[in-house]
Amino acid sequence: MRNLINILDFSTEELQGLMDTANDIIDHPETYRERCKGKKLATLFFEPSTRTRLSFEAAMYELGGNVIGFSEAQSSSAAKGESVADTAKVISCYADIIAMRHPKEGAPLVASMNASIPVINAGDGGHNHPTQTLADLLTIYREKGRLGNMTVGFCGDLKYGRTVHSLINALARYEGIKIVLISPDELKLPSYVKKDILKERGIPYEQTTDLEAFMPELDVLYMTRVQRERFPNQDDYLRLKDSYILTPDKLQNAKSDLIILHPLPRVNEISVEVDKDPRACYFKQVLYGKYMRMALILKLLKEAQKSYALSCDDITVIEKKTDTPECLVNVLHCNNPRCITSTERELKHIFKLTDRENRVYRCLYCEAKAE
Amino acid sequence: MRNLINILDFSTEELQGLMDTANDIIDHPETYRERCKGKKLATLFFEPSTRTRLSFEAAMYELGGNVIGFSEAQSSSAAKGESVADTAKVISCYADIIAMRHPKEGAPLVASMNASIPVINAGDGGHNHPTQTLADLLTIYREKGRLGNMTVGFCGDLKYGRTVHSLINALARYEGIKIVLISPDELKLPSYVKKDILKERGIPYEQTTDLEAFMPELDVLYMTRVQRERFPNQDDYLRLKDSYILTPDKLQNAKSDLIILHPLPRVNEISVEVDKDPRACYFKQVLYGKYMRMALILKLLKEAQKSYALSCDDITVIEKKTDTPECLVNVLHCNNPRCITSTERELKHIFKLTDRENRVYRCLYCEAKAE
Amino acid sequence: MRNLINILDFSTEELQGLMDTANDIIDHPETYRERCKGKKLATLFFEPSTRTRLSFEAAMYELGGNVIGFSEAQSSSAAKGESVADTAKVISCYADIIAMRHPKEGAPLVASMNASIPVINAGDGGHNHPTQTLADLLTIYREKGRLGNMTVGFCGDLKYGRTVHSLINALARYEGIKIVLISPDELKLPSYVKKDILKERGIPYEQTTDLEAFMPELDVLYMTRVQRERFPNQDDYLRLKDSYILTPDKLQNAKSDLIILHPLPRVNEISVEVDKDPRACYFKQVLYGKYMRMALILKLLKEAQKSYALSCDDITVIEKKTDTPECLVNVLHCNNPRCITSTERELKHIFKLTDRENRVYRCLYCEAKAE
Repeated sequence: MRNLINILDFSTEELQGLMDTANDIIDHPETYRERCKGKKLATLFFEPSTRTRLSFEAAMYELGGNVIGFSEAQSSSAAKGESVADTAKVISCYADIIAMRHPKEGAPLVASMNASIPVINAGDGGHNHPTQTLADLLTIYREKGRLGNMTVGFCGDLKYGRTVHSLINALARYEGIKIVLISPDELKLPSYVKKDILKERGIPYEQTTDLEAFMPELDVLYMTRVQRERFPNQDDYLRLKDSYILTPDKLQNAKSDLIILHPLPRVNEISVEVDKDPRACYFKQVLYGKYMRMALILKLLKEAQKSYALSCDDITVIEKKTDTPECLVNVLHCNNPRCITSTERELKHIFKLTDRENRVYRCLYCEAKAE
Repeated sequence: MRNLINILDFSTEELQGLMDTANDIIDHPETYRERCKGKKLATLFFEPSTRTRLSFEAAMYELGGNVIGFSEAQSSSAAKGESVADTAKVISCYADIIAMRHPKEGAPLVASMNASIPVINAGDGGHNHPTQTLADLLTIYREKGRLGNMTVGFCGDLKYGRTVHSLINALARYEGIKIVLISPDELKLPSYVKKDILKERGIPYEQTTDLEAFMPELDVLYMTRVQRERFPNQDDYLRLKDSYILTPDKLQNAKSDLIILHPLPRVNEISVEVDKDPRACYFKQVLYGKYMRMALILKLLKEAQKSYALSCDDITVIEKKTDTPECLVNVLHCNNPRCITSTERELKHIFKLTDRENRVYRCLYCEAKAE
Repeated sequence: MRNLINILDFSTEELQGLMDTANDIIDHPETYRERCKGKKLATLFFEPSTRTRLSFEAAMYELGGNVIGFSEAQSSSAAKGESVADTAKVISCYADIIAMRHPKEGAPLVASMNASIPVINAGDGGHNHPTQTLADLLTIYREKGRLGNMTVGFCGDLKYGRTVHSLINALARYEGIKIVLISPDELKLPSYVKKDILKERGIPYEQTTDLEAFMPELDVLYMTRVQRERFPNQDDYLRLKDSYILTPDKLQNAKSDLIILHPLPRVNEISVEVDKDPRACYFKQVLYGKYMRMALILKLLKEAQKSYALSCDDITVIEKKTDTPECLVNVLHCNNPRCITSTERELKHIFKLTDRENRVYRCLYCEAKAE
């Protein structure tokens, strides 16, 4: 069984395959209208997210399938205390594929370990949101004609923005990528992302607080929101916020073939005036997101015949064979309060070795480092 | 692009066309079963309204289409602060037509100015609810065989009842209409409706507090609810409320071919005993509402090829040409706290000239008069 | 019109017919894929229940039909004070069949008395939940090959568990059934169930607090949850709770062909370790529930041509003919605060004679005994 929990679950070849399918859907939508006839997508949204949910639903309907599900935890059995594992087993009786949004990090992974149908992570807390990254990649690919050899600026909240971390992760696998990190000091990219991804892979990057200074270099500008509540000192927020709001005048020195992306919803971080600029691609991004979700649903349903790639039991088998085993099961306890291990009953605490040299273990579910 | 924001957006010929289609659907439902195959309706309900929402959904399914959407703001991105304009742009990537219910007056108009697909107003605060008026018109037309030459009584809360104002607006365009306004003094029809519609068009009308006195004259009786919270003085409410509850004995002197309408939901303003009376048409009205919504969806999708009828930019072009321009853009500010201009970011405040002689300008969104 | 309000509405022959259909659907799903094309199921869930709602929706989609509805009262017109009777009449204009979950006992019966389409009770407070019983019966039938001649243990909360009462009611009609009632004293089967069903029909039964002692005798073990809030004394809860949690060691002396059922959601009353035991059938039960709902929808839609089996007016006709009439209409008042009569406007209070010898009358809606 293939799932999509983390964007790195797919090789670059697989991502290219998804983009090829998406492009074919855009060119020949009529040939896809009955591809999922008789199939059902379950949209299990334990917290609300209209855009993502409706994108999945539109995708499934355009493939001729149907949709069941819920749009917030209150309407679900979770309110009665059902575990994510049981929900996944129950929904496997009703649907053919699951898209899950959950406030706890790792919840969709737990679902995938218990479901007998493919699971797509539609956002797990501040952790991963791989289908947004699929939308981002197709937008760059279609608008720029390539995925490598370009300078990509990320602007705004780079500390908490999960879509930023995922896209950096995805782009780091292509040739000739240069990254510009534009944010206030309070919201800089976490050092582990810089270390584990950018330095590890030798990606050149600049770090700055000045959007306009670097604007002329950028091929792609990825905007995110700077939220007032992220600042301990409100004066700092008021002083800084306008620097990270994109307006037409800030674009004067930008390249003519720049593309501007935003994961949406926007509040005020891109002025409505910018919408008319042909470089504004954030609504196209919405459309491309739907096509990538269609391609993803097709791929996962096609590969659903295969058996489980990973289950709790498989992991038990490989535990504790050496001094530095690949997996530690119920040896360490994850202390991240946002991790699914903090709420799910009878769930094994599993840590996997991610850096043998330094003996770094990370929680299987939320990727928090073991202390 | 055609939309339905206000019942007056359609000419009487267009309304007749919708009724003809609805009648044809009733007679030949099987020929409509695949008309919207592959199309999607988005039901964007920023406040709950089961009846209206399910009527739209049933309509779309009976045309062979699909439905995506949400049933309350909490489940939507609005909770994250997204503007109506952005929501309309995003949903245009997912669906083929929008039905929007919103607590703010003018919100569906804002949506229609930003969507690239047709928008239907499914109720905007206390302002408009044109598809209810479509249901009312078809009920009168089918049950009475005509839309003019009749005496129509409106009973109950005529002050806040948006369905009353819309139906009066619609009926005022037919010949031989006489209106009887039956309400407590506290809930009389607003004087601007009387002045702008009834007096302006020379429609004869009576105003009374006594339902039974005028009952024998009525061809149509449109009931609405008298809500306790509308009365500043609770003693007045208790004294008056029974006068406006329809019971079988109040119908003793009514015409045998009277028809009784109600926009529903009813609480206690029509006794359940009246349901058995063949003159009670409020459940038929529900059914006719579904058929009119089917006809409306078909009409708007058919006309969706055409370009925007109105956009913010078109308006900018025509502003301030004369001393008494047709439009004032960002000159006046709408003070109605229920208007969408009070919450939507970067929305132009637009006032249009509605009475050149008296230089009356009204807000484009909520139709409040400029001061 | 046939409805399913109480499992006893169907004869054992009809239940067998439903099971035969369900088995045929399991063997030949492809022949059912278009059976409900063009039909709509309305899922009216006045309180949330993901599993039941999604089971109905999956069932309808697998029959080729569509679904409209709501998943909690807040999104429905009930929040505006609409009666269940009016909701049923309105929904009859939109759908072909209703599945209703409601917190008030008897609400689905009221709906069935006002709808012009079939109504399925999807759970009415603590009263009935007949489609869960359908799932239970098919699971026993398929896994054991029979419905009679077996010993069935019920364990946990037998006092408030509506699924327990319904299944006992259903099984009591088969030959050779023996019942073992396993619960703490605080949560014993109510004496009226023992008297009216078990003693009345001469079903042999044992009552015990000791699960392990009776384990070797059981052919079926039906687990339910022991909720902390049911115990006036929290010390008693803590002392007792582990006795009613099923773990692999408690199964050591069980029969090798025992089957373990649970209506779900489970919290902790069956250890996750038990899931791997081939005798664990509670997830199969979920799947079988979907097939029984498919069979039920087909049966009720097929019989929907027939006229009302019961309406308020029919009842009025047969009232007060003798000293001990079959029905009492508006003579007695139901005092059960959970009964739909406590909230529904203008609803007749009807009591029916259920035991002529002892002149026992029960409320038509909630079956509470008249005092």
